[in-house]
Amino acid sequence: MIKVGIVGGTGYTGVELLRILARHPKVQLQTITSRGAEGATVAQMYPSLRGVVDLTFQAPDKAMLERCDVVFFATPHGVAMEMAPALLKMGVRIVDLSADFRLQDPETYRRWYDHTHTCPELLAEAVYGLPELLRSRLRNAKLVAAPGCYPTAVQLGFRPLIKAGIVDIDHLIADCKSGVSGAGRAAKVDMLMAEMGESFKAYGVPGHRHLPEIRQGLEAITGQSVGLTFVPHLLPIIRGIHATLYATLKPGMGADIQQLYETAYAAEPFVDVLPAGSHPATSSVRGANTCRIAVHRPQNENVVVILSVIDNLVKGASGQAVQCMNLMFGLPEVMGLEMPALVP
Amino acid sequence: MIKVGIVGGTGYTGVELLRILARHPKVQLQTITSRGAEGATVAQMYPSLRGVVDLTFQAPDKAMLERCDVVFFATPHGVAMEMAPALLKMGVRIVDLSADFRLQDPETYRRWYDHTHTCPELLAEAVYGLPELLRSRLRNAKLVAAPGCYPTAVQLGFRPLIKAGIVDIDHLIADCKSGVSGAGRAAKVDMLMAEMGESFKAYGVPGHRHLPEIRQGLEAITGQSVGLTFVPHLLPIIRGIHATLYATLKPGMGADIQQLYETAYAAEPFVDVLPAGSHPATSSVRGANTCRIAVHRPQNENVVVILSVIDNLVKGASGQAVQCMNLMFGLPEVMGLEMPALVP
Amino acid sequence: MIKVGIVGGTGYTGVELLRILARHPKVQLQTITSRGAEGATVAQMYPSLRGVVDLTFQAPDKAMLERCDVVFFATPHGVAMEMAPALLKMGVRIVDLSADFRLQDPETYRRWYDHTHTCPELLAEAVYGLPELLRSRLRNAKLVAAPGCYPTAVQLGFRPLIKAGIVDIDHLIADCKSGVSGAGRAAKVDMLMAEMGESFKAYGVPGHRHLPEIRQGLEAITGQSVGLTFVPHLLPIIRGIHATLYATLKPGMGADIQQLYETAYAAEPFVDVLPAGSHPATSSVRGANTCRIAVHRPQNENVVVILSVIDNLVKGASGQAVQCMNLMFGLPEVMGLEMPALVP
Amino acid sequence: MIKVGIVGGTGYTGVELLRILARHPKVQLQTITSRGAEGATVAQMYPSLRGVVDLTFQAPDKAMLERCDVVFFATPHGVAMEMAPALLKMGVRIVDLSADFRLQDPETYRRWYDHTHTCPELLAEAVYGLPELLRSRLRNAKLVAAPGCYPTAVQLGFRPLIKAGIVDIDHLIADCKSGVSGAGRAAKVDMLMAEMGESFKAYGVPGHRHLPEIRQGLEAITGQSVGLTFVPHLLPIIRGIHATLYATLKPGMGADIQQLYETAYAAEPFVDVLPAGSHPATSSVRGANTCRIAVHRPQNENVVVILSVIDNLVKGASGQAVQCMNLMFGLPEVMGLEMPALVP
Repeated sequence: MIKVGIVGGTGYTGVELLRILARHPKVQLQTITSRGAEGATVAQMYPSLRGVVDLTFQAPDKAMLERCDVVFFATPHGVAMEMAPALLKMGVRIVDLSADFRLQDPETYRRWYDHTHTCPELLAEAVYGLPELLRSRLRNAKLVAAPGCYPTAVQLGFRPLIKAGIVDIDHLIADCKSGVSGAGRAAKVDMLMAEMGESFKAYGVPGHRHLPEIRQGLEAITGQSVGLTFVPHLLPIIRGIHATLYATLKPGMGADIQQLYETAYAAEPFVDVLPAGSHPATSSVRGANTCRIAVHRPQNENVVVILSVIDNLVKGASGQAVQCMNLMFGLPEVMGLEMPALVP
Repeated sequence: MIKVGIVGGTGYTGVELLRILARHPKVQLQTITSRGAEGATVAQMYPSLRGVVDLTFQAPDKAMLERCDVVFFATPHGVAMEMAPALLKMGVRIVDLSADFRLQDPETYRRWYDHTHTCPELLAEAVYGLPELLRSRLRNAKLVAAPGCYPTAVQLGFRPLIKAGIVDIDHLIADCKSGVSGAGRAAKVDMLMAEMGESFKAYGVPGHRHLPEIRQGLEAITGQSVGLTFVPHLLPIIRGIHATLYATLKPGMGADIQQLYETAYAAEPFVDVLPAGSHPATSSVRGANTCRIAVHRPQNENVVVILSVIDNLVKGASGQAVQCMNLMFGLPEVMGLEMPALVP
Repeated sequence: MIKVGIVGGTGYTGVELLRILARHPKVQLQTITSRGAEGATVAQMYPSLRGVVDLTFQAPDKAMLERCDVVFFATPHGVAMEMAPALLKMGVRIVDLSADFRLQDPETYRRWYDHTHTCPELLAEAVYGLPELLRSRLRNAKLVAAPGCYPTAVQLGFRPLIKAGIVDIDHLIADCKSGVSGAGRAAKVDMLMAEMGESFKAYGVPGHRHLPEIRQGLEAITGQSVGLTFVPHLLPIIRGIHATLYATLKPGMGADIQQLYETAYAAEPFVDVLPAGSHPATSSVRGANTCRIAVHRPQNENVVVILSVIDNLVKGASGQAVQCMNLMFGLPEVMGLEMPALVP
Repeated sequence: MIKVGIVGGTGYTGVELLRILARHPKVQLQTITSRGAEGATVAQMYPSLRGVVDLTFQAPDKAMLERCDVVFFATPHGVAMEMAPALLKMGVRIVDLSADFRLQDPETYRRWYDHTHTCPELLAEAVYGLPELLRSRLRNAKLVAAPGCYPTAVQLGFRPLIKAGIVDIDHLIADCKSGVSGAGRAAKVDMLMAEMGESFKAYGVPGHRHLPEIRQGLEAITGQSVGLTFVPHLLPIIRGIHATLYATLKPGMGADIQQLYETAYAAEPFVDVLPAGSHPATSSVRGANTCRIAVHRPQNENVVVILSVIDNLVKGASGQAVQCMNLMFGLPEVMGLEMPALVP
């Protein structure tokens, strides 16, 4: 059994890790930490886990965590980078769900997160946790930077197009919509149901922290710099991301994009390319570790429209983190992740 | 492996059976029927089941169904009673999620369902599928009548009080609220999102079909006739039932109702009595086969308030049906039903 | 023109007052105060009021408020009682939407609000602002205590039954459901959309502050003490209250309850008794100052079920407060309040 | 008083016309027709209009309609074109909310609506009902084609950019999201709350009927052909459209786009350009006849992002239709349309 610790378990990615890991056949939940909730049981904070998880939140304790095989960080940025070096030194592997090890350039990190990176020396070692792109490196990773939710949906959506070199990479557009759980479990007036319910709006249009992460990922595919406009919006639903992606075909390109996508993801257990003409609903992946993609070329003109949906807490966070863990420990990649979506 | 057939699989209880049974370790899905959807794949109608279920809807075929060990009916009332006798004769066991075998009195059935029962001779053999009440009979059942969603929440909620004989059974009140999936997957104007969203209303106050079923269940507990006012309401959510139950204590009774409930359900895997002072949310059982119950006695007066929540499609329908199947086939009762609720 | 001031205008009852008063033909909005938002324009906080209200939030200023004809308090409890005496002395009339002057007994106030009343001498002068019960007193009122949202729906619903003396007043039940705007515009984790969306729960079952207010109101009707069980629930909608009320008919009573209600409210502009057999939806009063009521007697037994719906922010708060103001200033009672509900 | 008739009043644009016109100081509602609901009162179908509108649905009757000064068509396409010629001949003016007179080319109409136009000779006379573009022509119009909901949000959003000639009109993108009331009041499984709630998806990506209408409108502004990709999505809300518009600046252009928009709409009563940096929420226009627009140029690069929100039933349909009527009859343009948005 893999002994697992979770740091910062009171937020939504934390409870989602618990939901998944509690039923994972090779995992033993060892410890879960939270400064704010110290002493409370998981079941008190999340009655949905009564009878499923019987841990108590503890103050972060180095000795406890060092007894784990792997520690997940479900913390705000800045925490994992403080604790990672010591844990790695003790042979504990790390899957960080925060942004600390996603950006390879510490200066870019400083600019977007307004925080100086305290262990830039680990950035080269950190593997970006998108198995569809970096599976083989993940098998040997000690430190994994689990991707953000938007970056997962956008990169999986754009990747075959960009890799095939058939679109204009200077003018990519990602119009993305996210459920409110993406904003976390913090008390903010503008995330109240009375504010967010029955409404819809964009946010962060001047610049969102996931922009440099997406750009870095797309540039890694093509090897060139990429022009991307990224506009996130808030949906009045709890779970789900829908990315609507636009790219312009280079002249003469685009013969069979549907085929391109089906081939690219044929062997992927968690990427589902829908039949031509489909429109995936976010509900079709609710609670599941699946990314569903549909490919369109309206009126046969030169703009390709890709629709990519995930559950932001599963394939966009905790499910993908467990997928990475499975790879790191030589387990079947799908282990513990085969629950179908909850529909209706 | 238990060979399973599903009749009428296009509705919400049908797809929920598929979601659960597809991951059940001892089940092999054999056939699924639907007149309306004949020839369509399950995945076409429910993209959430792509890669999970690869069956195609077929016209109901007696020979096919007779090769099953058990057939679930997820049909409107009137269908199961037509097909049950022949299947039972061939040794096929039946779990009927419709109302056909719930009411022991065929005349009551006729009055409430406006339909004459065509095989009243099977009513005595049918076992009402509420394991917490009838576990031992279910182990040997050939024909199970899975309870309605409201009746499950109300009976589990009232049962310890009534069994203890401490409340006035002439004046019980069940104020119940259900998510919209309870109304099924039929095209009706008043179930459109534009009608039901951001709104709430009662319905069926003059008389709802679950009333005689609940009354029959409560009367079986006490052996006496029961006075019950049952008011259902429609919630603008997809899944979930919340029953708020009111009963008046007989003079001098009610010393420790919390203890009464904890004892009554101590051994039940799917009934969770919350700590005193709790208010269960329907989300705490979303997608789970659990009934959570809280017990209150406001201002210590003589009215007891019981709060009982279930997921109407799981413990209120398909999950409970699988729980019955497990009992019928000698499997661990919880097999295939241990998924935690999807929270948030 | 009536010069109006609003104290505490940043919450939902405050913005609702602005929405209504800005279009009131006899009102001139003079000043709006908020300590927290001082210096911000109303339009910055509520873009929906851009071009409609051009006030700026100011720190509460006695001199400013004294120049008003009437001041509305849309504040937490404890504020109005501090400022009321001085304003009344200067001849300013007051409509208080908080709880400060609702309970006639200062000791009851202290017990339920955990706060000692600082001007109990004004309680006798304060008129409870339910025009359907106290219209003539409101015409001469200097100080009005606008009712709570639940108390409005419950009192209007129960009143004809109790006044007619045909039900057992020792065992009344009010099962109430409220939209989330009733909880106000404060940053609380449990009111986040990710917590409240797609869910439903009861709260405050051991005792809610509106209980003594409702009881006081019902006892004023009957002149006797009343036994009431009041259970509030939170609905995943923004606006709307649905009260489901249960009362037991005294033997031989209840000949024509529908007629009783139609007669009782025949002359009321804001109470609408629906035809027999109806089930009012909260959406049918969204944004309107109307209470819609339906009367049921299921299976003709001795329990009467009353369904009563209001918009908690309009008839349950700000609309009713304006209705009171109209009475106080001799204006037509319906002035500025004739907007139909927003449906769909 | 203007005598008004409504043909096809049972749908959402019909009831919205009633809500607005019932309070319009210069309108007298004369007749409302519906084949399906003949004999029912408006109040039976829409309890929200009890006490507000006391009309009864009637079978369409030429003589009745001819006594009106203006007739609104809130019908499916194909109806207005049948009845318009006779009414116009009798001097009755027409505001058609359907698509019948929107497209100037009958062949384009036939292709997108799969229906041959029966009175193409009226197309030249019909005025497209977008007052911000065609105010002076609307003052003399006999036949107005009220725009579609998406076309209103998109044209108002793009217009200043296109008119200024500073963007590449070959690569415009309109990523649009609409509330479910836009799909009308027809019983369809995929518009059930259990299907649409808590979910989000695109639809009609290969081609939506509003595409040719938007293109025609944008081409009228620029006088050139326009390349537009239009992707509509369904939001799990009742009312509201959010258009996110993307355009690429021509080299050297774009000095002050915020100023451009503020100037363009300075005199418009129903278009509100928000301060720089804003993100309008659809709730900020719920129930109001306002279009709110925000202008962004992320990271100061060459892509402009315009956010444009309306209430699809008001500025996107019935409110705009009344705005047109006001112009046609020489009334103040804002008459009957000054209700603020319903927030929260």
